[in-house]
Amino acid sequence: MSALSSQPYKGTRDYYPEDKRVQNYIFATWRSVAEQFGYEEYGAPTLEPLDIYTAKSGQELAGEQTYTFTDRGGRIVAIRPEMTPSISRMVAARRQELPYPARLYSIANFMRYERPQRGREREFWQFNVDMFGVDSIAAEAEILSMSDAVLKAFGAKDEDFVIKINNRKLINFMMAQYLGLDAVSAQLMVKLFDRKDKISPDDFNDQARGILADDIDEGIEKINVLLSAKSMADLPVEIRNSSSVVEVQELFTLLERAGVKSAVFDITLMRGLDYYTGTVFEVFDTRPENTRALFGGGRYDGLVGLFGAEPISAVGMAPGGTAIENFLEVHKLVPELISNTDIYIVVMGDASRSAAKLARDLRARGVNVELDITDRKLDKQIKTAVKKKIPYMLFIGDNEVQSEIYTIKNTVSTDEQKLDIDGVAQLIKNGR
Amino acid sequence: MSALSSQPYKGTRDYYPEDKRVQNYIFATWRSVAEQFGYEEYGAPTLEPLDIYTAKSGQELAGEQTYTFTDRGGRIVAIRPEMTPSISRMVAARRQELPYPARLYSIANFMRYERPQRGREREFWQFNVDMFGVDSIAAEAEILSMSDAVLKAFGAKDEDFVIKINNRKLINFMMAQYLGLDAVSAQLMVKLFDRKDKISPDDFNDQARGILADDIDEGIEKINVLLSAKSMADLPVEIRNSSSVVEVQELFTLLERAGVKSAVFDITLMRGLDYYTGTVFEVFDTRPENTRALFGGGRYDGLVGLFGAEPISAVGMAPGGTAIENFLEVHKLVPELISNTDIYIVVMGDASRSAAKLARDLRARGVNVELDITDRKLDKQIKTAVKKKIPYMLFIGDNEVQSEIYTIKNTVSTDEQKLDIDGVAQLIKNGR
Repeated sequence: MSALSSQPYKGTRDYYPEDKRVQNYIFATWRSVAEQFGYEEYGAPTLEPLDIYTAKSGQELAGEQTYTFTDRGGRIVAIRPEMTPSISRMVAARRQELPYPARLYSIANFMRYERPQRGREREFWQFNVDMFGVDSIAAEAEILSMSDAVLKAFGAKDEDFVIKINNRKLINFMMAQYLGLDAVSAQLMVKLFDRKDKISPDDFNDQARGILADDIDEGIEKINVLLSAKSMADLPVEIRNSSSVVEVQELFTLLERAGVKSAVFDITLMRGLDYYTGTVFEVFDTRPENTRALFGGGRYDGLVGLFGAEPISAVGMAPGGTAIENFLEVHKLVPELISNTDIYIVVMGDASRSAAKLARDLRARGVNVELDITDRKLDKQIKTAVKKKIPYMLFIGDNEVQSEIYTIKNTVSTDEQKLDIDGVAQLIKNGR
Repeated sequence: MSALSSQPYKGTRDYYPEDKRVQNYIFATWRSVAEQFGYEEYGAPTLEPLDIYTAKSGQELAGEQTYTFTDRGGRIVAIRPEMTPSISRMVAARRQELPYPARLYSIANFMRYERPQRGREREFWQFNVDMFGVDSIAAEAEILSMSDAVLKAFGAKDEDFVIKINNRKLINFMMAQYLGLDAVSAQLMVKLFDRKDKISPDDFNDQARGILADDIDEGIEKINVLLSAKSMADLPVEIRNSSSVVEVQELFTLLERAGVKSAVFDITLMRGLDYYTGTVFEVFDTRPENTRALFGGGRYDGLVGLFGAEPISAVGMAPGGTAIENFLEVHKLVPELISNTDIYIVVMGDASRSAAKLARDLRARGVNVELDITDRKLDKQIKTAVKKKIPYMLFIGDNEVQSEIYTIKNTVSTDEQKLDIDGVAQLIKNGR
């Protein structure tokens, strides 16, 4: 038999301890922000019936990008490509029992067929934060404050990112009233706006002409007014006077009070998924290395109702692990991370039995101890401790067994101290 | 369109916050034991090529039980049914670079087609702990000490569980030398022993007769000697004198020194998977409610070599979340778990703007705060805090905004205090 490949499946990643430390740092930071705001963690299955995505996620995500197959019972299932339909399903199932507002978060993995490239992997991790049961714009203000808080928690500054905000009701008004498009053409135009940064201005105009049925030149002119608007004041008066502008203005008032400085209004921001019904937003890195949105979110009031429950309003966001990791790298915000192991016990001579006892006694005092059980030469044992980035080495041989005083050495500074077991435990606790 | 079902996919589970708290408690306990022993966390992909399981996992697991499908690129993939082949693949891929002994752990989800029943779900979580690069029995002693430590960390006592230990080399000797079976018959006999608690003694004897080619009566008699052996001393002398008994004896010596009191030798323990090469073990609940093994493990020295790397010795174990949860329930070891949110801010009158500021200021002091943003009546806000099991409620209205002294109430005892913001933050910190 020929050897099996040792490579991971296409577009997925093996997390060795040094990679996992970075991921754990990202997860811990997400978790701390969610919990600061009083959100509680939930979990959902990896597999879902495919139809929960086809209903409302948008064609690309539910169709081409989803890992789907038929199970042995003939059910058509999908490996979840996103969390929003799952949490909406869960809320629908306990519509009556849940306490509202329900503030919920999860940290979970997802799969999509993607051409593997920087910032995109076929399997990726996301932090999903959702609030259910609040109609008012205060919900959006909280979720957007959390978007800001997440990046700040990683050490980002206001100027490192921009939060672009728009509103689906305003977009609908713009498409139907201002541009005079019917429902089908409006949807095509939304998708075109959504792609505008990925195609040339000429391509954009050509495709826009194809969507505009009549008054094509006037339509293109109107679109260009939208594209060149730098703020709400630049918008045509009929849009500025539309009722949904009030929502946008109220949101910006709340964000200003909350100290969110990176939020801007952007009439051209669409946000691809079909389920959004009000505010939509995307967060962008201001550095040119990361051009794609870091993450986004918005209001999706219709999704819970698809599961046969009374509709319930919902607002959420979903930062992804890979995009955050790239952001941290570009901004040099990845902290120096070391092992969670405190001490590597290096065993000399015949001390292995006493060393095992010392390891047990240190663990009982709350110290994380890796014990060398290999009977190797000293230099090899030390090399292992250094390679594992364990902060301290403790040496035990016949003398130490007798005196019960151990030499403990800082792996980086090589400073040495001679301490008894309680002194060792205290040294570790003081360093935490 | 008819409504979508709000139920999770067959055999999988939705974890609402109260369920997720229990799961997080289990995960945190696993993690703390792994880190006490100096193990480092890794992560692996959800999908793997199917062939890494067909090579060595055993027919049932690689075949009937695996979620497998063909991806859009024509690759035959599987949702991982276990972690051992993945971590062996990862170690093979970095055979040269990794520091040894490599002590690695993960907490991850897996899928198998199972008939859903108590203790078995189609999607389940496992704690995988593996040591690579140590040939000596000291590796087994450490992994078995950790098995013991895991259950103790949950509050279990020595008498709550038993660790049954056997050795594949001894099993092979027993099958080939003692029973005189050829390789194919030996494997069939191993599978039969593995099922012995699930079938009647008569069925067992009938099937054993079918496997024994000649000297059937003598074979059955020899098997019955094995089945009735209570300790190593009861074994036939030719087995007791076989070289692999030395390994078993050495292991028991080390376990005794390590204070592991629940370990027993069991010549009939087989452990289903094909990749084990030496020590095998399974941990059982001593209470009759849980008859299946809680978890198991063993030595599997051949797996890394399948990936084209030099072979490397390995010992591991894999406790599962559902089995542990059942164990904790039966032994009444599930602790009372409350929300990670410290304070629910109840807003009275027009204080919402000041309440939002107070929430921000408390968060900046490290307090986890959920803010009511609903403008609901007082009793409804209080009901939400109680239902969410948040330990404290803080009341803010016009008076509090003026005085900057807040009423903070213990949700359970209903004790009240009047404190300024620093007093509130101190109260929460003292309670942790």
